[in-house]
Amino acid sequence: MNTGLGICRRHVERAPREAVERLSRLGVATVHEAMGRTGLAHPVLPPIWPGAHACGTAITVLLQPGDNWMMHVAAEQIRPGDIVVAACTSENADGFFGDLLATSFRARGAVGLVIDGGVRDVKDLREMRFPVFPRAVHAKGTVKATLGSVNVPVVCAGVLVHPGDVVIADDDGVVVVPAADAAEVAAAAEAREANERAKRARLAAGELGLDLYDMRDKLAKAGLRYID
Amino acid sequence: MNTGLGICRRHVERAPREAVERLSRLGVATVHEAMGRTGLAHPVLPPIWPGAHACGTAITVLLQPGDNWMMHVAAEQIRPGDIVVAACTSENADGFFGDLLATSFRARGAVGLVIDGGVRDVKDLREMRFPVFPRAVHAKGTVKATLGSVNVPVVCAGVLVHPGDVVIADDDGVVVVPAADAAEVAAAAEAREANERAKRARLAAGELGLDLYDMRDKLAKAGLRYID
Amino acid sequence: MNTGLGICRRHVERAPREAVERLSRLGVATVHEAMGRTGLAHPVLPPIWPGAHACGTAITVLLQPGDNWMMHVAAEQIRPGDIVVAACTSENADGFFGDLLATSFRARGAVGLVIDGGVRDVKDLREMRFPVFPRAVHAKGTVKATLGSVNVPVVCAGVLVHPGDVVIADDDGVVVVPAADAAEVAAAAEAREANERAKRARLAAGELGLDLYDMRDKLAKAGLRYID
Amino acid sequence: MNTGLGICRRHVERAPREAVERLSRLGVATVHEAMGRTGLAHPVLPPIWPGAHACGTAITVLLQPGDNWMMHVAAEQIRPGDIVVAACTSENADGFFGDLLATSFRARGAVGLVIDGGVRDVKDLREMRFPVFPRAVHAKGTVKATLGSVNVPVVCAGVLVHPGDVVIADDDGVVVVPAADAAEVAAAAEAREANERAKRARLAAGELGLDLYDMRDKLAKAGLRYID
Amino acid sequence: MNTGLGICRRHVERAPREAVERLSRLGVATVHEAMGRTGLAHPVLPPIWPGAHACGTAITVLLQPGDNWMMHVAAEQIRPGDIVVAACTSENADGFFGDLLATSFRARGAVGLVIDGGVRDVKDLREMRFPVFPRAVHAKGTVKATLGSVNVPVVCAGVLVHPGDVVIADDDGVVVVPAADAAEVAAAAEAREANERAKRARLAAGELGLDLYDMRDKLAKAGLRYID
Amino acid sequence: MNTGLGICRRHVERAPREAVERLSRLGVATVHEAMGRTGLAHPVLPPIWPGAHACGTAITVLLQPGDNWMMHVAAEQIRPGDIVVAACTSENADGFFGDLLATSFRARGAVGLVIDGGVRDVKDLREMRFPVFPRAVHAKGTVKATLGSVNVPVVCAGVLVHPGDVVIADDDGVVVVPAADAAEVAAAAEAREANERAKRARLAAGELGLDLYDMRDKLAKAGLRYID
Repeated sequence: MNTGLGICRRHVERAPREAVERLSRLGVATVHEAMGRTGLAHPVLPPIWPGAHACGTAITVLLQPGDNWMMHVAAEQIRPGDIVVAACTSENADGFFGDLLATSFRARGAVGLVIDGGVRDVKDLREMRFPVFPRAVHAKGTVKATLGSVNVPVVCAGVLVHPGDVVIADDDGVVVVPAADAAEVAAAAEAREANERAKRARLAAGELGLDLYDMRDKLAKAGLRYID
Repeated sequence: MNTGLGICRRHVERAPREAVERLSRLGVATVHEAMGRTGLAHPVLPPIWPGAHACGTAITVLLQPGDNWMMHVAAEQIRPGDIVVAACTSENADGFFGDLLATSFRARGAVGLVIDGGVRDVKDLREMRFPVFPRAVHAKGTVKATLGSVNVPVVCAGVLVHPGDVVIADDDGVVVVPAADAAEVAAAAEAREANERAKRARLAAGELGLDLYDMRDKLAKAGLRYID
Repeated sequence: MNTGLGICRRHVERAPREAVERLSRLGVATVHEAMGRTGLAHPVLPPIWPGAHACGTAITVLLQPGDNWMMHVAAEQIRPGDIVVAACTSENADGFFGDLLATSFRARGAVGLVIDGGVRDVKDLREMRFPVFPRAVHAKGTVKATLGSVNVPVVCAGVLVHPGDVVIADDDGVVVVPAADAAEVAAAAEAREANERAKRARLAAGELGLDLYDMRDKLAKAGLRYID
Repeated sequence: MNTGLGICRRHVERAPREAVERLSRLGVATVHEAMGRTGLAHPVLPPIWPGAHACGTAITVLLQPGDNWMMHVAAEQIRPGDIVVAACTSENADGFFGDLLATSFRARGAVGLVIDGGVRDVKDLREMRFPVFPRAVHAKGTVKATLGSVNVPVVCAGVLVHPGDVVIADDDGVVVVPAADAAEVAAAAEAREANERAKRARLAAGELGLDLYDMRDKLAKAGLRYID
Repeated sequence: MNTGLGICRRHVERAPREAVERLSRLGVATVHEAMGRTGLAHPVLPPIWPGAHACGTAITVLLQPGDNWMMHVAAEQIRPGDIVVAACTSENADGFFGDLLATSFRARGAVGLVIDGGVRDVKDLREMRFPVFPRAVHAKGTVKATLGSVNVPVVCAGVLVHPGDVVIADDDGVVVVPAADAAEVAAAAEAREANERAKRARLAAGELGLDLYDMRDKLAKAGLRYID
Repeated sequence: MNTGLGICRRHVERAPREAVERLSRLGVATVHEAMGRTGLAHPVLPPIWPGAHACGTAITVLLQPGDNWMMHVAAEQIRPGDIVVAACTSENADGFFGDLLATSFRARGAVGLVIDGGVRDVKDLREMRFPVFPRAVHAKGTVKATLGSVNVPVVCAGVLVHPGDVVIADDDGVVVVPAADAAEVAAAAEAREANERAKRARLAAGELGLDLYDMRDKLAKAGLRYID
């Protein structure tokens, strides 16, 4: 039995760097679509400034409510290009993270933080341009008393994250790409984006989606009635 | 029996253009007051950027959860100056709307979108300066499989909207003015605004609302006790 | 029996001006920590613009739902450097406060408003740079019909506030410092901030919190297992 | 302009008594399905005891937050077989209704109450077996100071209700049948229920919905893959 | 500076026993009204079975999130007739309390528990008929690692409680009567209840609140229009 | 890339029957503790009647919002002793399940349903004594149009469930035991329960947890101050 608590795994099988870089040029919505509409966290992790964006390989943290001890354990495991993904054993909005930890994470090479919990010092974090996607902003301080884990699989805001997965976060939400699928998803997402570019031009010219996507027959068969 | 599903009404009795233009120069709070403190949606539809504003005649959409098919049906019904108002048959935060539909809506002349549901591509929407007032931001994709309706009366975030009504949305919320009342409400709101301008100057000079609104007697009669 | 309703207390024992000024240069998180991690409101009072900040001595208001009469009674009690803290006898998001009251409050010397309720005219409030920390933004108008109180102790978003207490509000939340503790808390917070400055430099240089805070032994004793 | 406030309409066009009686023998889910899946309130109005049920013709009330004055105006309009449906001009959980009003409503012939607000004295209400479907239970008292309306169209928990409509409430929720459609909906719902009875027997015997509803082909066409 | 953490106060000035007994025969709504409509907690503390009721003198506990250590400290301070009132330094639904603590609390003479947090073993608690009014039911276990306090003033679900205050909890909510006001409030509540008994009989006989409370003139003056 | 949609896995590696039976005699809180305080769903899945209990091996379902097609696909995969665990690709409270599906599930041998979504016909479900643990009760009907999956890993109310895992649900919540750990967890939970029995007797006799758990020294070291 592996309860998932009290563990720090040092070895992480990270997604290939090249795939991460390709994914970093794509939006969350596009990547989610390219994965067959899967991989999204619940829409409860807004960025701390509009337009914030982060894409990296996941270092996962499992926190205890009111306790940010594991964030320090996680810091040591960060490699350049990682993004920290923190979940909690119960719902808790305390301020697990602030400007000091951000300074440390950045010094280790982290590109951002996704956290199903609270953060504080957000004015400083904005000035540092350290992208954070938290459930809450809360000045509430935390203790360092109880073990959680680092680099175990975690459920963060409803989505399963394994260490090494690619995590992309922007204004639209947070999506998780399993490490093994990263290259394939990047290719599918790039194709989707190219396809959308063409459609955008036609829609901008006034063409209707009804025609562009050939919907009129299907709507009629489904029983749509036009009345005046 | 008219169940309200599977219908697209083409004819919309729009509020007079001149009244819409007058209303577009007024804020939501002022218009709501001028209507005797009625007509407001619940405060759950924040703009996707601070200061966003939209005022138009309503094209209404009734969506099914997880399904944005009717948005495409609605696009065809848009006339310049319209605002799309989308409700859903149940609470659902999926991303019913993104930059492609915004491109299409704008090409048809829409001035904005109010939606009791989720939207995505918000960074693009902000760059396009297409004002959207959604319940949620969520990358979650939708399908095109089940009929809703277009241009039937809908309840959107708690407020009843008929096609053709004037809908005004800004930082303070969303207000709906019945088409037939548009001119009368515009006049009352303009009067109210003029009245407030005078009061603002007196308050800025240090006069108290207690005196300006002649409240001291009423407070005393209600039993207010001043103590030291 | 003092029910707390129908009273306006004129005399307020304000925290010393010098302590308020020192506290105004510190953040909410720092002050909360310096108070032994107490004094915080629930994280439900975000500022109406990012970066808004206010620090003053509290004028308290107890409102009735849908009724902002007491805000006018409170205006008269404001002295320069005060911050108004408004609670409500039940949860209510109506727009108790807008640009007219802001004009009046500012004319009296108020430095901001914390309100466990709704406000409106937020675009104007932002332009005025009048810092407001509300639970909601809502255009809904209120009446002036039922007595609440001014300058009684109130619970606002979960935190107890006495008239004259120092209230600090910023992006991280709202913290209340009892008037009698203001100088002591200011000193402790200043010391804490100085201490954090040194740590920040070491963390920025790549030192780990594990070493800086001497955590490795404690983690091992608590049973943390490193695995590969 | 009719703002909807300050009005009590005495004449109500009630749905035919015979249709109401037929509808009273059917469940909310069945009636909602028979209306083409429309007419439901949001699922926020649980009964005050499991199994509570009410079906009647609507007397509508529009309340102000924290104010139950209009409930007394409504009482006079109640005819035997009516159900009172109360909405509020803003979200408010105060205790608008208790055992005294229940006593009065029952004496006038009311069969129940649906209220997008709070109620109190619920132990007494349960003992009286007066079915109430409230948004909240809250002891908070209300005042009698501001006009709302009686027997105007209201939006209650997201559903539009006209005076005289049939309102059915049970454990599954609250559904509104327009007065003019009552007989037609009753017939459709009765047919649906008869149809379900036959299906229930076949499912109880172990037959699968896949076969009963002939789904296997459609699932295969949609692309369902069975794997081992 | 007294931060409120790390303290257990042994001496509690309890409300007079006789007043507590009188209050224990009254409902929460009645007592709240008798206090001028004050003293109520937010409506988020439902009983773990319908009809549960508790009235006692408060032993207060301030918990840390995820940590129930202080509940054991509190147990020793319980005297027969006390009710434990537990708040938390941040919002947290963990299961701070279960059947073992209930066994201990009861052995010490406690009459119930009000807790702005989670509890578990609710089936056992129901069988024991130990009345608990929690914010949540959650099996989540807690640790014993960080100090809170016992018998300091706490804010529990929005209401201020001092040790020794009378706390009454029933289906309608939780009300707090300051120890010094207990006798006066009991008298006022008894008077109110007697008065309501007479009104109930008249309303049951069909008399309208409009007449019983003499509202018709006031409504007319406020502008109520009857239409047909 | 395996997107998790459009799949029905027929082979499920179920936890050993004997371990399931032992676990079925234990409560959710006890099992969660025996797993090192892991495995719990969020506290949002209350039973449809107090005291409802279910324990079985998981058949998992991934639904689309507003669409219950996959419930029928799942029915065929049920073996006696299974419990169905349904998640949804986005938050949705529609009534995915009612008395017909319950009849079918029971005929196949299912012992209950855990669903992160809505159910209806709850009165019938209670009369059938079919234990259901839903996020919501809602009469809202669903369609059968879009593929989800059956027997893929799902995240349900925040907890990861694999097909074949043991799922236990009662008043205290829902806990998931990985199939491979079932016997070990059962043993640990039984030991814990035996241990608690002894403690309960000592606490009932008036012994304090402070002494039973030997806390006094640790509290003193942590700095607890007793004052009078």
